[in-house]
Amino acid sequence: MDDRVVVAFLPEGQMTQVVVGTSLLDAATAAGLQIDAPCGGQGRCGRCKVRVTGEGLERRANARLTAAEIAVGTALACQAFVTAPVEVTVPPARDEEVRPHGHAAAQPELLPVQCDWRRDPAVRTICLKIEPPTLTDNTSDLDRLRRELARQHGIPELRAELPVIKDLGRRLRAAHWRVCLTLEMRDWIYGTYLPPRLIDVRPTGDPGFNYGLAVDVGTTSVVAYLVDFTTARVTDSSSAFNKQIACGDDVISRIVYAGHEGGLARLQRLVVETINDLIATLEARTGVPGGDIHEVSVAGNTTMTHLLLGLDPRYLREEPYIPTITVAPRLIAAELGLNVNPSARVHTMPAVGSYVGGDITAGVISSGLSTTERLTLFIDIGTNGEIVLGNKDWLIACACSAGPAFEGGGVEHGMRASSGAIEDIWINAETLEPTFRTIDDAPAAGLCGSGLIDLLGELLATGVLDKSGRIDRELAGATPRVRVGDSGKAEYVVAFAHEAGADHDIVLTESDVTSLLRAKAAIYAGYSVLCRSVGVELADVEQILIGGAFGQYLDVEKAIRIGLLPDLPVERFHFLGNTSAVGAYTALLCVNVRHDVLAVAAKMTYLELSADPTFMDEYMSALFLPHTDLDTFPTVRDLLAARGADRRRTP
Amino acid sequence: MDDRVVVAFLPEGQMTQVVVGTSLLDAATAAGLQIDAPCGGQGRCGRCKVRVTGEGLERRANARLTAAEIAVGTALACQAFVTAPVEVTVPPARDEEVRPHGHAAAQPELLPVQCDWRRDPAVRTICLKIEPPTLTDNTSDLDRLRRELARQHGIPELRAELPVIKDLGRRLRAAHWRVCLTLEMRDWIYGTYLPPRLIDVRPTGDPGFNYGLAVDVGTTSVVAYLVDFTTARVTDSSSAFNKQIACGDDVISRIVYAGHEGGLARLQRLVVETINDLIATLEARTGVPGGDIHEVSVAGNTTMTHLLLGLDPRYLREEPYIPTITVAPRLIAAELGLNVNPSARVHTMPAVGSYVGGDITAGVISSGLSTTERLTLFIDIGTNGEIVLGNKDWLIACACSAGPAFEGGGVEHGMRASSGAIEDIWINAETLEPTFRTIDDAPAAGLCGSGLIDLLGELLATGVLDKSGRIDRELAGATPRVRVGDSGKAEYVVAFAHEAGADHDIVLTESDVTSLLRAKAAIYAGYSVLCRSVGVELADVEQILIGGAFGQYLDVEKAIRIGLLPDLPVERFHFLGNTSAVGAYTALLCVNVRHDVLAVAAKMTYLELSADPTFMDEYMSALFLPHTDLDTFPTVRDLLAARGADRRRTP
Repeated sequence: MDDRVVVAFLPEGQMTQVVVGTSLLDAATAAGLQIDAPCGGQGRCGRCKVRVTGEGLERRANARLTAAEIAVGTALACQAFVTAPVEVTVPPARDEEVRPHGHAAAQPELLPVQCDWRRDPAVRTICLKIEPPTLTDNTSDLDRLRRELARQHGIPELRAELPVIKDLGRRLRAAHWRVCLTLEMRDWIYGTYLPPRLIDVRPTGDPGFNYGLAVDVGTTSVVAYLVDFTTARVTDSSSAFNKQIACGDDVISRIVYAGHEGGLARLQRLVVETINDLIATLEARTGVPGGDIHEVSVAGNTTMTHLLLGLDPRYLREEPYIPTITVAPRLIAAELGLNVNPSARVHTMPAVGSYVGGDITAGVISSGLSTTERLTLFIDIGTNGEIVLGNKDWLIACACSAGPAFEGGGVEHGMRASSGAIEDIWINAETLEPTFRTIDDAPAAGLCGSGLIDLLGELLATGVLDKSGRIDRELAGATPRVRVGDSGKAEYVVAFAHEAGADHDIVLTESDVTSLLRAKAAIYAGYSVLCRSVGVELADVEQILIGGAFGQYLDVEKAIRIGLLPDLPVERFHFLGNTSAVGAYTALLCVNVRHDVLAVAAKMTYLELSADPTFMDEYMSALFLPHTDLDTFPTVRDLLAARGADRRRTP
Repeated sequence: MDDRVVVAFLPEGQMTQVVVGTSLLDAATAAGLQIDAPCGGQGRCGRCKVRVTGEGLERRANARLTAAEIAVGTALACQAFVTAPVEVTVPPARDEEVRPHGHAAAQPELLPVQCDWRRDPAVRTICLKIEPPTLTDNTSDLDRLRRELARQHGIPELRAELPVIKDLGRRLRAAHWRVCLTLEMRDWIYGTYLPPRLIDVRPTGDPGFNYGLAVDVGTTSVVAYLVDFTTARVTDSSSAFNKQIACGDDVISRIVYAGHEGGLARLQRLVVETINDLIATLEARTGVPGGDIHEVSVAGNTTMTHLLLGLDPRYLREEPYIPTITVAPRLIAAELGLNVNPSARVHTMPAVGSYVGGDITAGVISSGLSTTERLTLFIDIGTNGEIVLGNKDWLIACACSAGPAFEGGGVEHGMRASSGAIEDIWINAETLEPTFRTIDDAPAAGLCGSGLIDLLGELLATGVLDKSGRIDRELAGATPRVRVGDSGKAEYVVAFAHEAGADHDIVLTESDVTSLLRAKAAIYAGYSVLCRSVGVELADVEQILIGGAFGQYLDVEKAIRIGLLPDLPVERFHFLGNTSAVGAYTALLCVNVRHDVLAVAAKMTYLELSADPTFMDEYMSALFLPHTDLDTFPTVRDLLAARGADRRRTP
């Protein structure tokens, strides 16, 4: 008796044999298909809907499916288990391209830190004319190359690893023994500089150029800068959603997914694919072949770094939240499967702990926080929120599980910052009618993070929302924009279906508001606890640096209005864009920064919020708009008072 | 129009689609079949015979097939090209298991050189009790391990690479933080010792043991010793034919094969498979899991080393015969796919040149040649013949393309030293009837190297062969053992079909004798030129050390009789067995030997025989039995004179 059955996937016709009891999601993976499952296959997100023909399934009950859907054979792939042969129709994937508008990469033209990349280059080209071997001078190819490097350039030793050695013989002869070598000049182990390392051998006539790749591996988006080592400029950049999104939206879902059989390997493959796609895009646009990329610098949070290296991330999630490593071992690209020169060194920015990763140490380096005299708060709002307080002498950091609300997760019509996302909203205080702008001016498809913050602020200012985040049900009679559903849940309609050109209205519900309040409260509590832990007042903070992909599109006043950012003078805020990517770019060019960032990581104190007794109080007090104590947000208090006065005058 | 056709292979029924014009040999490879093709698919050896049904073939004319064979559909797989769908019957492979008798590994119980492996171990186990992490002591797993290693054992630094880091978190917790670490203690780069390197992490209760693997990768056979680091003893050993034999018998055929598409990758895979099979055999016999093998030492000729590392061997064969490298880069087992601990360091014995490889430097180290005061000749007869002359102060080496005659190649009924091979022969001077012994006392299947040397010597002594290697045709009337074929070629019948229990007689033909003369002449010329090049006489050589798998079974007097070994007093000869494997074993245990062998390789002068003006004269003079100048072999001269007198008396 065989307990394997066939599952066929339409419309492409892929087939696979699986053991009875396998979920359709796993069967799809086995068949080489990718079904979007942002919650990591836990039945929470409802995104993995498929249509099934036949009865060969056992389904788990799930609130994400309506009776009507079940009647026509719709199932959640992660909650349906194969019992007999079935035919499964997979809906077409939604277009998930990142639009330049949504996540445009910063284009740093000047290094944010001091470094002499001309005099102390990370990678260098040296050209040689080598005497061909003879029967009486039959030194090996590699030793001949070493001999000439010593004779002609005084470089006494040269390291070389397997990938560059493999076809060294062919390359030397094809170039008629006139070659240009690409060397890694500055590599050290435990404080000792090592001899140069051979990365590439090219003919003198076609020496190519030396490029580097700086990569910010975010949980949601991955950004790559192609950097020209001869000019220190970013030649081009490209970004895309992290393909791991198919396995979960946030780091926790990814860690859960990594625990499934084959999950870790798939996650690693997906992020490598994402980076390789960016490299292919950059090559297509600039003509720079991947093989000319001779060094790679990667910044990412600790989970992303673990997954990229194929390390089991399980213990990042289990208390007491311990990473396997904070400093990655010495690696070359061939070990990870990156489509750059296989001998390219891959540097990974060091982490501080499980929830303060290399993206933050990169941000600290590139933002200037680690060299400033001024008391500085650095806030990186991405899928998680990480916060660092300090100056050149000391640094303390914490991480807030803000959740993915600001990236559209857990919000009914939330979406990532891609085409059609509503990103700016104004609400008329009289009519309560909204005016909005979408990314690419495309038909409205949903609300992205900056749109959600705008919307909350406007709803608060116009009195649709009260301090505790409840919608004023009495307005339901006065405007069609406010309504109360059958279940008694109130919502505000941002765009009716006919306005959006969609088949449903785009709304913000009270439970969406709750999700957003939790996210912003976590961040507020984070920096408040951080300040208290070192005995400073929020008002003492001399500058607030905002990093992270999401931070770029934030409107400070509106963010203050909802209590996300502290109520400080606007001129103290600085938006730095993608500080993680800029940090990776800086470490790529500046050899000294590779030392500095290790020192930063070692120096930074990590404050575990869940172990701090004051955190929960701060968090609870911040679950209001803007805060339970209005005096902590004086400008918002005054605004609300003024608007309230206006409104009372209106009737 | 599709130019692909189906080829089906019987009796197993494998099928593949190939492009019209593909050889049956390549089609078989594509179908996952291995057809023996020792000549590398050049149509020379005639071993790849298959039977074809249907007309879908274009055949190249080939002398290896008789008209009768062609009539019944027999084809050489490498010389038959698919034009339309065909069905191909592949004959069963011959049993190619290496019998212990044929290639028994030496069992060294005492190291041949001085080294204090107890005080200066290559690999060491250190056990630690580690405090588990807490929210307030949340150092990463690897740094926690480093911290305790420093605190408890004063080891301040620890290196770790990706493979051992991957599941470090799980291992530490599964062991409840009581672990034993396996460390590589002695690793250096450019003369500087590096901090210990983490190889393995095991629970305190089940620490396992530390083993090493010493491997001799021969062109024909691969031998592996499992070495216990706690006793320095060889726990067990195993040997097998190198699976690369399917791609050619000698290094030249392999290099040709490596030039075909996918050839190099296949050769690398086959040798790794061969080693992995030996590891599996050792594990099955001893219970030592591959994961407990923590260091590997490999000795092989330069071609074998290039192929194991996946380096293009092409320029080893093209004048002026240049290896890509002589010293392999730092490697761990994961990079080669060996089924030992993935973090195990793989040491490769350094080469001197394209035809004096790591097997010879290993032999020089383990034979004591590099430390003796006495003028010593070291001869390693394998598929090639390599010769080193010198003492502790100087070393000069050469390589002779002896060809595979002594391993059964190019000899009509030659075979490797496996079951059924005739290895000892005596011929009755009166009757010319032979008496012989086969390996395993199995029915005679052919003649292996030592049998061939015996046979030549006996045929010479009994006058069946003359000095120039011709068979005395007049004897054809006197004995059925000597006969002249239709083509006028004379041969000696060692075993009639009914004696062998085979379907054909086992014979030695005059052209076999020619092949053997060429092989022994190359070796004789090699050591003669080597001596002359440094101005010493053969008679001045104080000891002759014979290494190599084949050397073990050589009878000195018979080898002198045919002019293979110099005519020196028998007591000067010493048989050392597999000096290459013993050298690898020595380097595995003795850290100092890893330095010494590099010094030996650097010190050894390589003499390219093809560039030496006296080589051809020496070679031509040695194409006789034993030599054109009988005075160079006085004992043979006297023997022949005595026997000749005997014989003249007989009638």
